[in-house]
Amino acid sequence: MDVERIGIEADSAGQEFFLRVLRFRGTGEAPTVYLQAALHAHEVPGVVALDRLIPRLEQAEGENRLAGDVIVVPQANPVGASQALFGETQGRFDFNGRTNFNRGFPPAGAETDLARPVDERLKSTLLSLACEADIVLDLHCDHDGPVYLYVHERMLEEGRTLARSLRARAILTDSGEDPFSFVLKVNQRWNEEGRANDRRFSATVELRSMIDVTADLAEQDALGLYRYLVETGTVVDRLQEAPAEEPVTGDIGAAELVLTPAPGAMMLDVEVGEWVAEGQRLAEIITEAGLERHEIRAPFEGMVLTRFNRRIVRRGDYVAKILRHERPASAG
Amino acid sequence: MDVERIGIEADSAGQEFFLRVLRFRGTGEAPTVYLQAALHAHEVPGVVALDRLIPRLEQAEGENRLAGDVIVVPQANPVGASQALFGETQGRFDFNGRTNFNRGFPPAGAETDLARPVDERLKSTLLSLACEADIVLDLHCDHDGPVYLYVHERMLEEGRTLARSLRARAILTDSGEDPFSFVLKVNQRWNEEGRANDRRFSATVELRSMIDVTADLAEQDALGLYRYLVETGTVVDRLQEAPAEEPVTGDIGAAELVLTPAPGAMMLDVEVGEWVAEGQRLAEIITEAGLERHEIRAPFEGMVLTRFNRRIVRRGDYVAKILRHERPASAG
Amino acid sequence: MDVERIGIEADSAGQEFFLRVLRFRGTGEAPTVYLQAALHAHEVPGVVALDRLIPRLEQAEGENRLAGDVIVVPQANPVGASQALFGETQGRFDFNGRTNFNRGFPPAGAETDLARPVDERLKSTLLSLACEADIVLDLHCDHDGPVYLYVHERMLEEGRTLARSLRARAILTDSGEDPFSFVLKVNQRWNEEGRANDRRFSATVELRSMIDVTADLAEQDALGLYRYLVETGTVVDRLQEAPAEEPVTGDIGAAELVLTPAPGAMMLDVEVGEWVAEGQRLAEIITEAGLERHEIRAPFEGMVLTRFNRRIVRRGDYVAKILRHERPASAG
Amino acid sequence: MDVERIGIEADSAGQEFFLRVLRFRGTGEAPTVYLQAALHAHEVPGVVALDRLIPRLEQAEGENRLAGDVIVVPQANPVGASQALFGETQGRFDFNGRTNFNRGFPPAGAETDLARPVDERLKSTLLSLACEADIVLDLHCDHDGPVYLYVHERMLEEGRTLARSLRARAILTDSGEDPFSFVLKVNQRWNEEGRANDRRFSATVELRSMIDVTADLAEQDALGLYRYLVETGTVVDRLQEAPAEEPVTGDIGAAELVLTPAPGAMMLDVEVGEWVAEGQRLAEIITEAGLERHEIRAPFEGMVLTRFNRRIVRRGDYVAKILRHERPASAG
Repeated sequence: MDVERIGIEADSAGQEFFLRVLRFRGTGEAPTVYLQAALHAHEVPGVVALDRLIPRLEQAEGENRLAGDVIVVPQANPVGASQALFGETQGRFDFNGRTNFNRGFPPAGAETDLARPVDERLKSTLLSLACEADIVLDLHCDHDGPVYLYVHERMLEEGRTLARSLRARAILTDSGEDPFSFVLKVNQRWNEEGRANDRRFSATVELRSMIDVTADLAEQDALGLYRYLVETGTVVDRLQEAPAEEPVTGDIGAAELVLTPAPGAMMLDVEVGEWVAEGQRLAEIITEAGLERHEIRAPFEGMVLTRFNRRIVRRGDYVAKILRHERPASAG
Repeated sequence: MDVERIGIEADSAGQEFFLRVLRFRGTGEAPTVYLQAALHAHEVPGVVALDRLIPRLEQAEGENRLAGDVIVVPQANPVGASQALFGETQGRFDFNGRTNFNRGFPPAGAETDLARPVDERLKSTLLSLACEADIVLDLHCDHDGPVYLYVHERMLEEGRTLARSLRARAILTDSGEDPFSFVLKVNQRWNEEGRANDRRFSATVELRSMIDVTADLAEQDALGLYRYLVETGTVVDRLQEAPAEEPVTGDIGAAELVLTPAPGAMMLDVEVGEWVAEGQRLAEIITEAGLERHEIRAPFEGMVLTRFNRRIVRRGDYVAKILRHERPASAG
Repeated sequence: MDVERIGIEADSAGQEFFLRVLRFRGTGEAPTVYLQAALHAHEVPGVVALDRLIPRLEQAEGENRLAGDVIVVPQANPVGASQALFGETQGRFDFNGRTNFNRGFPPAGAETDLARPVDERLKSTLLSLACEADIVLDLHCDHDGPVYLYVHERMLEEGRTLARSLRARAILTDSGEDPFSFVLKVNQRWNEEGRANDRRFSATVELRSMIDVTADLAEQDALGLYRYLVETGTVVDRLQEAPAEEPVTGDIGAAELVLTPAPGAMMLDVEVGEWVAEGQRLAEIITEAGLERHEIRAPFEGMVLTRFNRRIVRRGDYVAKILRHERPASAG
Repeated sequence: MDVERIGIEADSAGQEFFLRVLRFRGTGEAPTVYLQAALHAHEVPGVVALDRLIPRLEQAEGENRLAGDVIVVPQANPVGASQALFGETQGRFDFNGRTNFNRGFPPAGAETDLARPVDERLKSTLLSLACEADIVLDLHCDHDGPVYLYVHERMLEEGRTLARSLRARAILTDSGEDPFSFVLKVNQRWNEEGRANDRRFSATVELRSMIDVTADLAEQDALGLYRYLVETGTVVDRLQEAPAEEPVTGDIGAAELVLTPAPGAMMLDVEVGEWVAEGQRLAEIITEAGLERHEIRAPFEGMVLTRFNRRIVRRGDYVAKILRHERPASAG
């Protein structure tokens, strides 16, 4: 394992950022895999999963069982990690420029343009690291959700392989016309550089909820990632077959945020992963205790993909994200 | 039930705040009780508990079973509720003045002093409402915790009554020398106005965790509050005896925040309410995945009173609050 | 003068916003004019100018000298005005949704859609008020700048009339293809509703600098606005000819922000309105006192349109906005 | 000149802070002087003054004209400098802990306690550097003000010397009972360590307004600081006598913030340094243009020491700080 430290100039004097990059060398016969976590800096289930995966990669490297290189950036966003306000780390949006760290990617070469703010140079640095690989996994998590994936619609089949390894509940596909996210931007660069081919694959992996950070889940996710590296041939190993439920799939547009038209204290009626009927109550909002309440109902049949993770809501906040989908006969 | 609307001038033009006060009239034979929730505006378990309590109070009032007045302010902090940044309501500290809404109380009369900022006028208005009552309960919740209470050390016995009604796990006592909180400030004003007596009681009630906002818990807490109102004689009713575990008690200084000297992703080892031995590991912090980790250990024997509710921590953040206390023989 | 109060539901309970609209009735023979200030809530030179204009409009109305209606919204943004952090009102971006209050306009009808956040409903309300008029002036100010205008390129001639009335130094024109701002959005709605015609005109008016809020300037700007209302025939009055310098004009793309590639303390070399040669030094940045400094130079010949109003800069901040333009022979 | 870089661990992974310390060696016959600027990170007039002073110190050192050591920390607060929100550096309060960087000083030794947040370790580091010196100047600036000083009341005479060198308009004295500020804390540590003596002196220097950052003023202030170093004997040089007006002096309690009981757009009537009579109008506040205005008047005779630097005010904001003082016969 080689440990690299990439310095990134801060936007103020007396401050420096750096990225840690761990590199595991393979024989080059299998795809190079790039894994990053915490691009939204406070979404750390992927960080602890990588912490548990790294010793497995070291062992594979030591035993000459790496057929492809593996590049790991366990904490992709030191800028977001540095941001805290009133006692809470705020890792989703750049405080200064207001941009979501998984949006607003600058053109190639931006990493050395010092007139650009640090979030753009950081994002550009990460893209450059990722684009050298064949397979790119960007590990996020949701407010409150199951394991699920976002992939380009042309990569759905490879997405199923990844989903089975990670036991993901759902895959959302995207046309990629608007390459708004890190992994879509990676695809776009591969295309622009003429390096797109059947082997290339990128996915956003949502590793459950913000709060789902435990030793058991870290172990489970590390094993899932390892299983996927074995599937792709990057790591040579034999693993027991693991039974996996087939994921629900849908276009990204089929996953709809249900918004509340009233503020208040929210009591949710549904669990993540639950199937709901059209009109089924999702939550009760107490706008004024004893005086005014509102019920939020499912606009269509589908699966509760995610839930808001606060219990006070504002007018216009989302309550849950429902994936429009017919309830499978097998669903309980 | 009388519904009152108290307007509070905002600090900018084109904006107004208002408090909703619900009043239930009793015969005056029993203590007047003041109940407020969400002084930290985003702590809403108390809001939904009051929403479930209010119909019971209306019924008691209608059936002439109210021996004391009850005053309910279900959402005590419209100022905090109005504050949101990057998609999250921030209800603990005043954005402009930086003061914790449960600290920094102004002197009596401040509610009409327009040169004071709105948070001070709000706090003064609430104190005036509360001080007219004999019993004051201020409903909060913790990051992640059980039901527990803060009371003045001279009110411990009455605190036990409340704790049994609410099935609280612990009571923390305070000398009141520094009347930093709403309920201590109420005590101080009672003293200053010569109205302190054995009947007067005030408590901060912590109703579990931020996220513990469900219909079932709302019902359970409403029943607990109702049971307490019956105990104090304010509501006339007969309830079945409910077996309640005796709460653990300790001075507020015995509850110590355990801080982390390193930042990172946190995996907690202990549950809220769990008994821990000195030196027992509370959490593992992954500062740099694969490279640097830290273990946070209990500094003494005691009960895990609360846990931090984020899974990314900064240097100096707290991991858990441990109540220094010998483990009871009965503890599992 | 009719005074209207338009309530706007806040996004949290216990809070209300309202807009104040002042209406002056004319005979309908001349264009209706809509004037608003402080859409960026902290940009108040327009507020005090309108405060000084209003008595003149009352007098004109009382003397039957109003040939057109005048609608005045002196403080267009109570939401922005409500936002303060660490002692400073922050009126440019919505704290919660992060959107610039002069960007991100929702579709018509949004003002009644309660699932939309308050900034969108506010912007929609303002657009509806403005679109009924024939002439719309949106009064802003810059960090540090002269009086200058933004107009649609097809409205340049009418823009010159306004510029002469206000003694503006410059006019920037926009193709309107991307209707990003309030006044461009007004144009777009006029087009969509088939009400666009030669009489319609809208402009963003920049009334100098944030700090330029004095009784003298308020009087001067009120007089300039009044002069323009007389020019358009909306107010009937006779005013002395006022000599006015012809404004410099340019496409909005010709006004370029000059960014600093280094952070530090900034000493500016140039004044607002000054002509600079290509390569002329605009500012010196002290990145590390005694050790590292940077010089920021004009990328082309032109006029210093605006300057940054802070003296600490971050990497990527702008130093000044230069309007690319040949220096006129008459310039001093 | 020795250039030192002191690293300070950040509170998040992947980030580092550092302080730059410049040391000039003297013969030890005269007092050691410590100069720091920008403890409130965005107050940079002192930074540019030090930038202009440093070459003079290098020359003196090179010519063996330094009788005392000089320690310079030109940017004392890299933590505050790193903080930006919505496009503006926010250097006064720690974003996370909410503490003013010139308040809340931890006990000695805190710089190495990693369970303390970075602002406390930074402040402790600066105190340790400063306490080794005999003379400590902490260079700040006000919203909008003249050059003026804060000193311990027992150090008023030495304060006059400094005031004359810097041509300060006023000196405010403090009893030091509550050592809330950096320089009072330095005094306290000197006392605790038994090193207080007649030679020791510390002062907070307010170098005019936030916006007063120009090459001319930097030069003027560098010369003033140099003159003071010559006065103290630390630098050996001969300077022409410079005529200086005697500063106005008063207890810190005599400088009173005048608050506004109404929000709105503010037009100030008075200049910094102006003498005002009791009841004289300081500002007009336009709360609702055309409808509601307020006048803010001086509560007593005195000098306008500072003015608020925003032109939108909130209820409870300060308008100006007036130093209660009889108007001198000589005042214009």
